[in-house]
Amino acid sequence: MSSPEGFGLSCPLPIDQYPTVVLAHGGGGTLMHQLIGKMFRPAFHNPHLDAGHDGAVLRLTGRKLALTTDSYVVRPLFFPGGDIGTLAVNGTVNDLAMCGARPLYLSAGFILEEGLPMEALWRVVQSMARAAEAARVQVVTGDTKVVDKGKGDGVFITTTGLGAIEHDVSIAPGSVQPGDLVLLSGDIGRHGIAIMAVREGLAFETTIESDCAPLAGLVMELLDAGVEIHCLRDLTRGGLASALVEIAETAEVQITIEERAIPVREEVQGACEILGLDPLYVANEGRFIAFVPPEAAERALTIMRGHLLGAEACVVGKVMRVSPGLVTMTSRIGASRIVDMLSGEQLPRIC
Amino acid sequence: MSSPEGFGLSCPLPIDQYPTVVLAHGGGGTLMHQLIGKMFRPAFHNPHLDAGHDGAVLRLTGRKLALTTDSYVVRPLFFPGGDIGTLAVNGTVNDLAMCGARPLYLSAGFILEEGLPMEALWRVVQSMARAAEAARVQVVTGDTKVVDKGKGDGVFITTTGLGAIEHDVSIAPGSVQPGDLVLLSGDIGRHGIAIMAVREGLAFETTIESDCAPLAGLVMELLDAGVEIHCLRDLTRGGLASALVEIAETAEVQITIEERAIPVREEVQGACEILGLDPLYVANEGRFIAFVPPEAAERALTIMRGHLLGAEACVVGKVMRVSPGLVTMTSRIGASRIVDMLSGEQLPRIC
Repeated sequence: MSSPEGFGLSCPLPIDQYPTVVLAHGGGGTLMHQLIGKMFRPAFHNPHLDAGHDGAVLRLTGRKLALTTDSYVVRPLFFPGGDIGTLAVNGTVNDLAMCGARPLYLSAGFILEEGLPMEALWRVVQSMARAAEAARVQVVTGDTKVVDKGKGDGVFITTTGLGAIEHDVSIAPGSVQPGDLVLLSGDIGRHGIAIMAVREGLAFETTIESDCAPLAGLVMELLDAGVEIHCLRDLTRGGLASALVEIAETAEVQITIEERAIPVREEVQGACEILGLDPLYVANEGRFIAFVPPEAAERALTIMRGHLLGAEACVVGKVMRVSPGLVTMTSRIGASRIVDMLSGEQLPRIC
Repeated sequence: MSSPEGFGLSCPLPIDQYPTVVLAHGGGGTLMHQLIGKMFRPAFHNPHLDAGHDGAVLRLTGRKLALTTDSYVVRPLFFPGGDIGTLAVNGTVNDLAMCGARPLYLSAGFILEEGLPMEALWRVVQSMARAAEAARVQVVTGDTKVVDKGKGDGVFITTTGLGAIEHDVSIAPGSVQPGDLVLLSGDIGRHGIAIMAVREGLAFETTIESDCAPLAGLVMELLDAGVEIHCLRDLTRGGLASALVEIAETAEVQITIEERAIPVREEVQGACEILGLDPLYVANEGRFIAFVPPEAAERALTIMRGHLLGAEACVVGKVMRVSPGLVTMTSRIGASRIVDMLSGEQLPRIC
């Protein structure tokens, strides 16, 4: 249905069930996937969008480019370990990295709310500039809109990233193979808990900082070393669990993980218990999983562990053929359970 | 000051004067230019941004690409002649066209407000799909965020466009030369008046429809015919006047226009009088100006007039050396006056 006449006039989502947009439609869980899968993807139908990847891989003049976009609406704007500006640069840089692309250029669209303190905007812009410098990308074009007070929330930023893919490896969910190992780049749950702690006014013994960081350098090291990588995915909205379910479904494979292998810091685990959250679903902004064939795992881990952002990298699971689309986890006590996608997410407006 | 250490910690804007963001900071006038010129541009400093163009022209693997972004916050979402979806596609397609680029790919970032009727979103998405089909671009990647009720306004859309520049002409404000003629593609003011009429509940004898349309086809015809073009600019926020002032300042030339040469439909003129607006400053979404050397003007006009979107194309002014940065207009009664940029804009949230 590439023709606009091709899709009907009636809304493709069951509007008796969800007559309006709810927060969970942006939560990274099943409702968001329904919105994307049933409305956006059929309407804009094309192979790039259908690949179900973090960005589009485009062939232009014989070279491969990656294009990716994210809107950032995190609340509060400033949090331990970063702010919306850091996030807007690193998040998009990371999506490019997950396509195996070297990040080159960013665009930035600002939607400012009337009444936003000018000093706050300046802090955000400085954070973006620093993050761009660190990730070696240039913000080359932008746009500024202002909405009336009460029609926005301080500042929303949409960054789009353009990167170059300088290799012939197809890094995408579709490349995942039974037998692949799942590598995790480090401990999970810090970004979500850092945000939640500020939002709920919780004080822990140690301040938990967001893990927000640019992952492109580490990914480029893996690629430059010629490590065979089948798929990469950063663990943002919906956390490790949602990323695994998305890939299991797109690649039509089963993924099984070991709970005890997944690093979670003691203070994050403690905060999760207090807040009633499962770290598997908590957002990260500097963590990713890599799907590699078993023979490439040792080399990949060595490179990852040699990098500041992958020091705790480890194998957390493997890919199997048995039940396509299913993610299972062996718990600490040895029981096996199914890992589902949440219908919404635990924490709205996390990024 | 490409290094983040290079700019100071204090806010570069006079915060005693504007301690917070006001609507005019997004209005396309002097306040917006101050925000961009004093805060964004120095912070993200690079030659692409400094070119002061509608998009960035990038050299990648020996080929030229254009990257441009715009956030759309128009209110109301639906208006005669289009909606936020039509606008989000055509606006970005037009910015690519103004770089002389053939639009290829779009990304779309949606910021939805909790409570938005699902049917409204579906209408917007269908409009985007139709507009993309008409402009021959593909929406290849996207993102969806939902913000709490009262923290957004229905739907905001940020589209980023990637286009290919298939010629060696440098189409940019910096290429404008004294002696160039200023061609206008048609009548002005319809988009702004269409929005304003809905917003204010005004009924005119004939419904004034937005001129929202994709300009890339017409621009490609000019380029394919080898017409020498020095600069192109679409007349969005701030209208014809602001576009002229921006170019006069960037190119360091004087531009003089003839009021009587500028087509304004009778009903638009009438509405402007009722609303106390000057059509020179009213936004358009399907009109542009072209700067061409005098010897190319006839050919350019013939091609433009042969196209539905340029049927009323005409010469409205010329470029002079006398007073760099100045725009002057000869009125209907023969008097000359200076055309300034407004400090804000007449109509907030017009696109």
